[in-house]
Amino acid sequence: MIVTARLTFSAAHRLHNPNRDAEWNRQTYDKCDNPRGHGHNYALEVSVRGRIDPETGMVIDLKRLKDIMRERVIDRVDHTNLNEDVDFLRGVIPTAENLARSFWQQLAPHIEHGELHEVVLQETERNSVRYMGEDE
Amino acid sequence: MIVTARLTFSAAHRLHNPNRDAEWNRQTYDKCDNPRGHGHNYALEVSVRGRIDPETGMVIDLKRLKDIMRERVIDRVDHTNLNEDVDFLRGVIPTAENLARSFWQQLAPHIEHGELHEVVLQETERNSVRYMGEDE
Amino acid sequence: MIVTARLTFSAAHRLHNPNRDAEWNRQTYDKCDNPRGHGHNYALEVSVRGRIDPETGMVIDLKRLKDIMRERVIDRVDHTNLNEDVDFLRGVIPTAENLARSFWQQLAPHIEHGELHEVVLQETERNSVRYMGEDE
Amino acid sequence: MIVTARLTFSAAHRLHNPNRDAEWNRQTYDKCDNPRGHGHNYALEVSVRGRIDPETGMVIDLKRLKDIMRERVIDRVDHTNLNEDVDFLRGVIPTAENLARSFWQQLAPHIEHGELHEVVLQETERNSVRYMGEDE
Amino acid sequence: MIVTARLTFSAAHRLHNPNRDAEWNRQTYDKCDNPRGHGHNYALEVSVRGRIDPETGMVIDLKRLKDIMRERVIDRVDHTNLNEDVDFLRGVIPTAENLARSFWQQLAPHIEHGELHEVVLQETERNSVRYMGEDE
Amino acid sequence: MIVTARLTFSAAHRLHNPNRDAEWNRQTYDKCDNPRGHGHNYALEVSVRGRIDPETGMVIDLKRLKDIMRERVIDRVDHTNLNEDVDFLRGVIPTAENLARSFWQQLAPHIEHGELHEVVLQETERNSVRYMGEDE
Repeated sequence: MIVTARLTFSAAHRLHNPNRDAEWNRQTYDKCDNPRGHGHNYALEVSVRGRIDPETGMVIDLKRLKDIMRERVIDRVDHTNLNEDVDFLRGVIPTAENLARSFWQQLAPHIEHGELHEVVLQETERNSVRYMGEDE
Repeated sequence: MIVTARLTFSAAHRLHNPNRDAEWNRQTYDKCDNPRGHGHNYALEVSVRGRIDPETGMVIDLKRLKDIMRERVIDRVDHTNLNEDVDFLRGVIPTAENLARSFWQQLAPHIEHGELHEVVLQETERNSVRYMGEDE
Repeated sequence: MIVTARLTFSAAHRLHNPNRDAEWNRQTYDKCDNPRGHGHNYALEVSVRGRIDPETGMVIDLKRLKDIMRERVIDRVDHTNLNEDVDFLRGVIPTAENLARSFWQQLAPHIEHGELHEVVLQETERNSVRYMGEDE
Repeated sequence: MIVTARLTFSAAHRLHNPNRDAEWNRQTYDKCDNPRGHGHNYALEVSVRGRIDPETGMVIDLKRLKDIMRERVIDRVDHTNLNEDVDFLRGVIPTAENLARSFWQQLAPHIEHGELHEVVLQETERNSVRYMGEDE
Repeated sequence: MIVTARLTFSAAHRLHNPNRDAEWNRQTYDKCDNPRGHGHNYALEVSVRGRIDPETGMVIDLKRLKDIMRERVIDRVDHTNLNEDVDFLRGVIPTAENLARSFWQQLAPHIEHGELHEVVLQETERNSVRYMGEDE
Repeated sequence: MIVTARLTFSAAHRLHNPNRDAEWNRQTYDKCDNPRGHGHNYALEVSVRGRIDPETGMVIDLKRLKDIMRERVIDRVDHTNLNEDVDFLRGVIPTAENLARSFWQQLAPHIEHGELHEVVLQETERNSVRYMGEDE
């Protein structure tokens, strides 16, 4: 059984690899390399996999899962600049892929019932990524 | 190939385990333990997995799948109180997890082409569960 | 200029006029007259009309508007039975129309900047109502 | 008859009035005053009011309306920092209200059939504004 | 008080004015002039304006409104070719604007409580029209 | 890591197997067998699975993925009649299942980074299919 909670946050970011030159960055990231940044309303969906506790009828209390998501991720990224304001994103190019993996790392140790199954990050109506802990 | 049909229903429920005392129930379910109930618009997504029939180009006729969903689940839960009105939910704490598993049990024997693959139950914009027949 | 905030709540209700007999209620409200109730996820959209304050660039701070909505409406109806739990709905048949008008009455005196313009209440994906203070 | 086109863009912004001190800005804009900015996926809905041309069956070609929206607004604000990158927003605090009014001013002179009726700007799932040319 | 019901239908259409030549049609309708047609999932929102009946708490029973919509419009246009299959659209270029006005004409005489207030027809996620009975 | 892009298109189709008689087709496809066709707004979600390139922070540039989707699928099916206008659908009954498999075949050879993981085709708010390359 998999349970999923969805929360949203709003943040600015710039896609830029400081180890590469301006031309490479412009070709790779195009408009997303704007030095003054742009931004998104992100939707974060976190899924936990486990057995139903017969006492409660729940895998994990979804209210509790959302509290964990707020404490570990949402409150630290909402209304921030993802390149500059977030300690656990220092040195990370804030693509949706890297954000999803970083959020997984923040969340996984704190899931108290069941196991973290999937992190989905929707960046726009047209772009999203899904991470299930591969390569950790 | 997996095909998915989505239908909605509206119902009241209360989360409460009658084998535990009032304090445990309040701590576990908080506002959801309101004795007079609350309610939701649920969205039920049922997925069937199978090969495409080359004659019809379909795994299962989605109109037929929706008829099965209506007959076995939707018509029996829509505009009801899930704690009191539904025979197949007697003795079940109507959490989203338990509902999804109960709906799976109602639906699985009646899928005529392919096999039941997944039942997704969305309780609110923020909460959903996914069940694939584990532990049956 | 009109600004709009949207919040959601979940509640149970039963449509029933106690001044009319069972047959009238069954004919009028059909499944919605189930004595044990049913429920919905409601979305409440509240619009305020006013001039843009040149100092702030805002008509009313949308965070403040949402706080007012929570204090006056959402916190009093969320996870309740609308027929029994809500003081300001005593004696009100909780149709979407009556709810929207009651919410307007709760909100209108507390809008500090601009004027209440419109209350939209969405009951399901298919049903909604809009009230602009007529007949007050 | 009113026709409406919807397009989206992504941008960063900071809410800050440079004529007021830090304390006022913090109290007024809270998290939105973050000096490094945050951002949103905005949805812009532009409505044009007019008679149906009997030859074409249209008020204005919605493809043409979207081209005007792209040329006059979307291409100039997408993937930008609204405080720094957009010429027509110089000196404007980029609240949703001010953006909607500025977009109206950019669009109104260029509507070739019918008249600009309404600009709706959705900033998040919970916040939106509507402007109909008042006070111009 | 305004109440709104939303239903969907799927149909094919071609935009073409038979009184004009091929070049004019191509320039005016571009890809929409494909002689073999294309299609949409349309969403039809019908709003009725009236006073709340104090006996029922309703302006018009939304179930009844949806039955009227099905009988007068949806059942006659769903899974059809709008250029060829629908009697009340003979000789009408099936633009969203013309469809909305035709649907209004079909619905207006049959609204039993309150008055038809608005017909909104959404053709795609990006295109919609709104008609309120002007010029009748 | 899985990345997903979503694009939409509008098309007409008719479900009909020319090797079977009229009665079989009517019984199998019902309203979908209308000889003059009907249509849909389809949403196509294409997912690519791969490792994050540490230089770019991306699996595949989502802008590039959308360009591939447009070139190989969207531009060839948008505003068409799927039974008659699309070369790679000759002889294919255009059910959602067959479309998803055909789109997979068009896309798979052209994914430059990572591997095609899943094609989801949403036909209406209620019907969708998911294909992951089985039986190829």
